[in-house]
Amino acid sequence: MRFPAKIYIRLPGRLKFPFVREGVQFYTSRLKHYIKLELEERKAPSKGKEAEMIKQTEARALLSGLDPSTKLIALDERGKSFGSLEFAQFLRKTLETAPKLCFVIGGAFGLAEEVLLKADHRLSLSHMTLNHELALLVLLEQLYRAFTILSGEPYHK
Amino acid sequence: MRFPAKIYIRLPGRLKFPFVREGVQFYTSRLKHYIKLELEERKAPSKGKEAEMIKQTEARALLSGLDPSTKLIALDERGKSFGSLEFAQFLRKTLETAPKLCFVIGGAFGLAEEVLLKADHRLSLSHMTLNHELALLVLLEQLYRAFTILSGEPYHK
Repeated sequence: MRFPAKIYIRLPGRLKFPFVREGVQFYTSRLKHYIKLELEERKAPSKGKEAEMIKQTEARALLSGLDPSTKLIALDERGKSFGSLEFAQFLRKTLETAPKLCFVIGGAFGLAEEVLLKADHRLSLSHMTLNHELALLVLLEQLYRAFTILSGEPYHK
Repeated sequence: MRFPAKIYIRLPGRLKFPFVREGVQFYTSRLKHYIKLELEERKAPSKGKEAEMIKQTEARALLSGLDPSTKLIALDERGKSFGSLEFAQFLRKTLETAPKLCFVIGGAFGLAEEVLLKADHRLSLSHMTLNHELALLVLLEQLYRAFTILSGEPYHK
């Protein structure tokens, strides 16, 4: 089953871990059967070491040039947590109303308040603080799992 | 700061994803600075396709030859969920009382009831159902994060 919408995933800076990049390729190649997906590693120029400054710089990089019709979903450990079946239903409903959907992942310090306030939804993958590159892998696997659930395929057990 | 205990992580069968194996190497080499750690990929002979049979076979493989002094922590999405700081404190307390600690991860169908009942603790990494190889990566990152927290090192933000 192919969905007509498009999913973007934005995160600040380039991925650093080679194993994550390989995992990303693994899941994106599978996700392509269900939906258009684009990973956007947004350049965020380094602005010192102060957490708030870094988050602000990243926020600009993450929000710039975003089509206003895009639904924004911020990954945030204090956001709403779903079971995998619930997440699949949430995704189905969101895709029915939005042609574009963008997940944003923060850097080492998380997302700036500005991004959280602008987001249509805040999604928590875990109560634990995940390294943002691992969070990307978990998100991709949950998207893959969700599309197999929505397509009635036997991946989810 | 080095901890005198030893952590085992057991899961059924061999890891299948090359990117997960690389990620495991990445985190285990970092964790070695803090504690002895052993990943045990336990051979579980295939027993057909029926979920309950598979879980039973895996349970035997996961529980066999376990030293009785070992504290058993089962990964289970219905288990207790911690924030990363809480998890670090839980780990510290558990390591104070047990010389050996074994995390067990189920296969595609999760863990058999027998393992869950035998476990001293049930830990949920996420409300979502994670592929068990990804769950291993998340667990390793949380262990690494916990040890940096307990050692007062600046990884966790």
